[in-house]
Amino acid sequence: MISYQEALSKILSETKIYPTEVISLEQSFGRVLAEPVTADRDYPPFHRSAMDGFAIFSGDFSPNKVYVYKKELPAGSNIQLESGDEAIRIMTGAPVPNGFDVVIKIEDCILNESNNKKQVSFSIQEVKPWNNIAKQGEDVKKNQLVLPKGIQIGTSEISLLASLGKEKVPVVQSPKVHIISTGNEVVSIHQTPLPYQIRDSNSFTISSILSKFKISPKLITHVQDIESIMTESIKCGLEGDILILSGGVSMGNMDLVPSILHKLGVELIFHKSAIKPGKPIWFGKRNGTIVFGMPGNPFSVQTCSRIFLEPYLRQSFGLTIHPVYKLPFSTTKQKKGSLTEFFPVKLETSDKTYLTPVAFNGSGDIRAGISSDGLAIFPNELSQIQKEDTIEFLPW
Amino acid sequence: MISYQEALSKILSETKIYPTEVISLEQSFGRVLAEPVTADRDYPPFHRSAMDGFAIFSGDFSPNKVYVYKKELPAGSNIQLESGDEAIRIMTGAPVPNGFDVVIKIEDCILNESNNKKQVSFSIQEVKPWNNIAKQGEDVKKNQLVLPKGIQIGTSEISLLASLGKEKVPVVQSPKVHIISTGNEVVSIHQTPLPYQIRDSNSFTISSILSKFKISPKLITHVQDIESIMTESIKCGLEGDILILSGGVSMGNMDLVPSILHKLGVELIFHKSAIKPGKPIWFGKRNGTIVFGMPGNPFSVQTCSRIFLEPYLRQSFGLTIHPVYKLPFSTTKQKKGSLTEFFPVKLETSDKTYLTPVAFNGSGDIRAGISSDGLAIFPNELSQIQKEDTIEFLPW
Repeated sequence: MISYQEALSKILSETKIYPTEVISLEQSFGRVLAEPVTADRDYPPFHRSAMDGFAIFSGDFSPNKVYVYKKELPAGSNIQLESGDEAIRIMTGAPVPNGFDVVIKIEDCILNESNNKKQVSFSIQEVKPWNNIAKQGEDVKKNQLVLPKGIQIGTSEISLLASLGKEKVPVVQSPKVHIISTGNEVVSIHQTPLPYQIRDSNSFTISSILSKFKISPKLITHVQDIESIMTESIKCGLEGDILILSGGVSMGNMDLVPSILHKLGVELIFHKSAIKPGKPIWFGKRNGTIVFGMPGNPFSVQTCSRIFLEPYLRQSFGLTIHPVYKLPFSTTKQKKGSLTEFFPVKLETSDKTYLTPVAFNGSGDIRAGISSDGLAIFPNELSQIQKEDTIEFLPW
Repeated sequence: MISYQEALSKILSETKIYPTEVISLEQSFGRVLAEPVTADRDYPPFHRSAMDGFAIFSGDFSPNKVYVYKKELPAGSNIQLESGDEAIRIMTGAPVPNGFDVVIKIEDCILNESNNKKQVSFSIQEVKPWNNIAKQGEDVKKNQLVLPKGIQIGTSEISLLASLGKEKVPVVQSPKVHIISTGNEVVSIHQTPLPYQIRDSNSFTISSILSKFKISPKLITHVQDIESIMTESIKCGLEGDILILSGGVSMGNMDLVPSILHKLGVELIFHKSAIKPGKPIWFGKRNGTIVFGMPGNPFSVQTCSRIFLEPYLRQSFGLTIHPVYKLPFSTTKQKKGSLTEFFPVKLETSDKTYLTPVAFNGSGDIRAGISSDGLAIFPNELSQIQKEDTIEFLPW
């Protein structure tokens, strides 16, 4: 039985590169950028006044001077200076005209009117060139790389892409994902279960993990443990990029999934990993299709989705950052045995942010993940975590 | 000028309670539960075998006994014991029949066949009642509260709601949000800006923050700084629950937003807060409508949305948890002045997870938030953060 690290490494070595598609900026939030983005022009695109006040030429400044001014320049407009323009009233965001190189903020200006001439003087003793001006190109130069490929488009990125006028965005195409839950004891949420039946929650769990990457599964289905029917269903499921099965991978007589996958020519990469929950996990491939066979318990599915499926998707999308967090533990916890254990934790903040375990009754407990912010990892080689120990945390 | 804490507190004191609507489970991911949820039955709903193996009555066990068995019980089926049923073959997930109280896992079973009778004996020395059985109701009792209202539906919650068969979910209705960006220098992303114009990124930034709560703005518009046009546009914007303006709230001659809001009868609650970026923020209300007037710079909008709009929405949704995280800082940072400063940071993990500042050029820098995971708070009263100091972190 292979370790968690080996299992993850085998899974990650099967990732592929998905093609690129071009979508509208409005739809791009949460998607992964497929090509690097460069600046269409300098940013700021012009010498931009950072204040409301007066623009002048710094070489011309003296503390006692009274400037005559005629013009006002709001943002979104432009003017050429003419002879006699010693100063102009300027607004935040407006372009500082050629010939001027400093803006004095309105709070430091004394306005006057004399002989129908508008005048301004300044209550400061000196000015520095380019003060209160954001110089053209000081943030970004035209053609400069501003976003690498392989990042997920979040708030900061969508704001930047909008500033650059990227109406269309090249993103990584979503894989075609099929979800099949198995088990005679499982019924759809739209049916009333018999006393010894349970409802199919696993397709919802898996779909919600997929939605982190804006993937909508192409097919969600449930099949009974009847070989002929399951075979047909899995055949269809293998027509996509990723097939995710839940249930039917353990030791029971009715655990038909491994044998059907074998008969359909799916190559086994590993079956079982030394983890808890999720030990019976099955992983394989056929041609371009990757197959995750997850155990049937709800928390096993949630855990396998988070620790295996999500990293697989991240790497296939070319995401450059694989976040692993390490935070202090708020209490102590023991374990027996040599499995790597994953348990639900919540983030609790006092003087600092701690991981606190959330009580649960094992992988069949339908409430296992409730109130938790993610999974903590109890490494296989340890039997105890002490208070203040720093442990790995995977947020949901 | 009021402090960050005062501003936040004034904003939070204006939250309202949104009504409830009922939607399908499939649409509920990311929404906030409006009513508590109780269990429709016990969980597990029956004494569930946790292993593949044999069920027997523990009182009947002796290490050398050879049991005759006839029946196999897969998950999803049920049987009544008949006289002569000493043991049954049982699968994981199947209901343990009345009369039996222990499951011995298949690895500890020795199977035999003699005189056409199927037999099993066990390689263990003792059994404990209820071993390898998840007892009915041990996780959740029928009618027990399993989810309080006021939590956001994530992976764990959607899995639980599916298990409970909640085809329809009562969630908090989304507010009607209107977004208006202002400024003569601003053009739509679909237009080619003149050299002294910039594109409207703020509506994208605000929309992406709203999408954390699955809110789609009802109206997104941009208006020039022309009083009559802006007045009409703001009049329409005031027809919703929340109006978010960007730009036009500073000191310039063209900063028409506060005066127009005043003329339209919007009550000012505060104008300006001692924060950076975002100092000129304007906040007010008219009847049932809340108005955020955010400054126009992209990073000011992103910051104000995160530090003010998001907590407002969370509280209005009745979300019970307001996450504030405190993590160690990886370096040192100085500030001058007495404003509360918000700066972009990324999470970096070595022996533990640190906050590392991301370089940026001020609130007008279109790249300010790129590569960051959220905002760190530099408290107003401090002038230096030291390495290893624990500071507050607000993830995007």
